[in-house]
Amino acid sequence: MSFNRLIDKIVEMNNPTVAGLDPKLDYVPSYIREKAFGQYGQTLEAAAEALYEFNVGLIDALYDVVPAVKPQMAYYEMYGWQGVRTFDRTVKYAQSKGMYVITDGKRNDIGATMEAYATGHLGLTDVGGQSFAAFGADALTVNGYLGTDGIKPLLEVCAAQDKGIFVLVKTSNPSSGELQDLSLSSGETIYNRMAAMCDEWGKALPGRYGFTGVGAVVGATYPEQLAELRAAHPSLFFLVPGYGAQGGGAKGLVGAFNSDGLGAIVNSSRAIMCAYKKEGCDEQDFAGAARREALRMKDDINSVL
Amino acid sequence: MSFNRLIDKIVEMNNPTVAGLDPKLDYVPSYIREKAFGQYGQTLEAAAEALYEFNVGLIDALYDVVPAVKPQMAYYEMYGWQGVRTFDRTVKYAQSKGMYVITDGKRNDIGATMEAYATGHLGLTDVGGQSFAAFGADALTVNGYLGTDGIKPLLEVCAAQDKGIFVLVKTSNPSSGELQDLSLSSGETIYNRMAAMCDEWGKALPGRYGFTGVGAVVGATYPEQLAELRAAHPSLFFLVPGYGAQGGGAKGLVGAFNSDGLGAIVNSSRAIMCAYKKEGCDEQDFAGAARREALRMKDDINSVL
Repeated sequence: MSFNRLIDKIVEMNNPTVAGLDPKLDYVPSYIREKAFGQYGQTLEAAAEALYEFNVGLIDALYDVVPAVKPQMAYYEMYGWQGVRTFDRTVKYAQSKGMYVITDGKRNDIGATMEAYATGHLGLTDVGGQSFAAFGADALTVNGYLGTDGIKPLLEVCAAQDKGIFVLVKTSNPSSGELQDLSLSSGETIYNRMAAMCDEWGKALPGRYGFTGVGAVVGATYPEQLAELRAAHPSLFFLVPGYGAQGGGAKGLVGAFNSDGLGAIVNSSRAIMCAYKKEGCDEQDFAGAARREALRMKDDINSVL
Repeated sequence: MSFNRLIDKIVEMNNPTVAGLDPKLDYVPSYIREKAFGQYGQTLEAAAEALYEFNVGLIDALYDVVPAVKPQMAYYEMYGWQGVRTFDRTVKYAQSKGMYVITDGKRNDIGATMEAYATGHLGLTDVGGQSFAAFGADALTVNGYLGTDGIKPLLEVCAAQDKGIFVLVKTSNPSSGELQDLSLSSGETIYNRMAAMCDEWGKALPGRYGFTGVGAVVGATYPEQLAELRAAHPSLFFLVPGYGAQGGGAKGLVGAFNSDGLGAIVNSSRAIMCAYKKEGCDEQDFAGAARREALRMKDDINSVL
C-alpha cells in the first residue's frame, strides 16, 4: 500500500536508482536483431523478440545491483501488441529476478475507466471467477490532470495489492513549464498544486519510511524545483527522470533527498541501455557495459548524498 | 493532416456521433462469453476473444449509420497483451468497414517517448527497413500537461499520415474542475490555457472545414464551458464524452456546435454497447439493440441542432 518494498530494496542495495527499459530497436545490438530477423523476418514479431532478448540480458546484468526497472510503455506499443507482449514478459521476468517494476505509462482517465487501467497494470483482472495479474507491475506513473476521481480507483488497488503510483508533478522536458510553472491566482504554481493534491491522495496509503504510496515525478533537469518540492512535501517519494542523457547531473539531485539520504529514486534509461555504444566495447558485451554504467551512476549519486 | 476525413463522414451520414468501444467482459452477452470459455477456459485469451466477437457484432451493426468508433485502451489493457491484440484487431476491422477510428488512450510523454507513442498509434513503425502500422488508428486522445514538446512529435506524424489528435481540455468527470477550473494569475482558467495551447498547436494542421487537426476533449456534462469554449476557439473540433450514461443530455450539447451544425462529435459508449440490457431484448439481438440506440441518439442530437 506504499513504497515500503521499493525503499527496502534501495536501502538494502544502497542504490537509489532505477534502470529505464525503453528499448528502441536501434538500441539493440545488431547480433540480436539479426538473429530475430533470421527467425521471423522483418516483422513486428521479430522486433518484439529482439527487444525481449535485449531486456533479459540487461535484467540479468542489473538485478543484483539495481533495485528496480522502469519499462516505458511507449516503446513497446510502438511495436504493436507484439511489443506489448514483450512488455508483459519483461515485467514478469524482472519480478522473477526480485526487481521492483515501475510501469511508466502516465495513464489517466475518469472513474470507471481508470479502474480498468488500475486493474490491468497493478491489480487483478477477473475472468469468469478466475483472477489474473494482467500486467501486474509494482507501481505505475499517472497523470493527474483529471483530478481526484481519476486517482481514487488507483488508491483502492494500491491499498489492496501493496502497490504505488507516481503522479507527474514537474516533468523533465524543456517545455514542462508552459503549463506546470504557471501561477494560479492563489499564488502557487500548477506543479505546486499538483504536489499538494498528491499529499492529499497519499493519506490513504501511509508507509513505514514516512513516504506514502503516492509519489511524484520531478525532473532532474530542474534542481531548484526538486529541492523546493522536497522541502515542502516530506511525504512524497520522488521518481526523478532526466539524469544523464537529458542533462541533469548528480549535484543537482542532492535536493531530491532528505538528510537521511532517502526520498527519491533516480532513473537512467538510454545511458544504461546504450552504454556499450558509448564505451565502444564489443556489442556482445552490452550487458556488461550496462552493469558498469549502472555502478558508475550508483557511485556518482551516492558521492553527493 | 486534420479532421477532414472524419468531418466528411459526419456530413455524409448526417450523424455527429461516435460509438465508444469500452468492452468490459460484463457487457458481453453471456452466450459469447460461454463460447469463449468453452474454447479457451477462463483465461485472458478467452476474455480477449469474447471482446473481439462482441466488437465485431457492434461494428457490423453500426458502420453504415455511425461514422466513427472510439475504443478505450484501458478496457483492453485490463485483459493484458491478449486484450491489446483484440484492440488492434478491432481497429483494423472497423477501418475495413470504412469507420474512422479514434483511439482513446490519453497518452502523454516527453519528446522522444511521445514520438514512440505517435509512431505506434498513428504512424508507421520501421523494422529493419519494413514499415508497419502498429496500431494505425486515425486519431488519438492525448493529455497536454507536459507542454509543447509532448505534442510536437504527434503533429509531425499527423501531417505525414493525415491523422488528428484530441487534447484533454475540460473533462466530463465530477472532479475535473479540481485542477482544470483553477484560475491563473492571468485571469484565465487552466482549461482556457490548454485550449489556447491547442489553437497554437493546430496551426501546423489546417483543415478544409475551418477546423485544425488538433481537437479538444470537452465533456457534455459541462454545457456552459462547452459553449464558452466553442465561441472562443472556432478552429477546435470537439470530442464530447459524457452524453447519456454520464448524465449529459442533448440540449446541453447545442453549445458544442457552430451555426452550421458542425464542430463536435459526441461519444456514447455504455448506452450503445449495453442497449440490449436496457431494452430487455434477447441478448442474441445485442447488435440490433445497439443500432437502435445509435439511431435514437443520432435523432436526439440532430433534433436540437
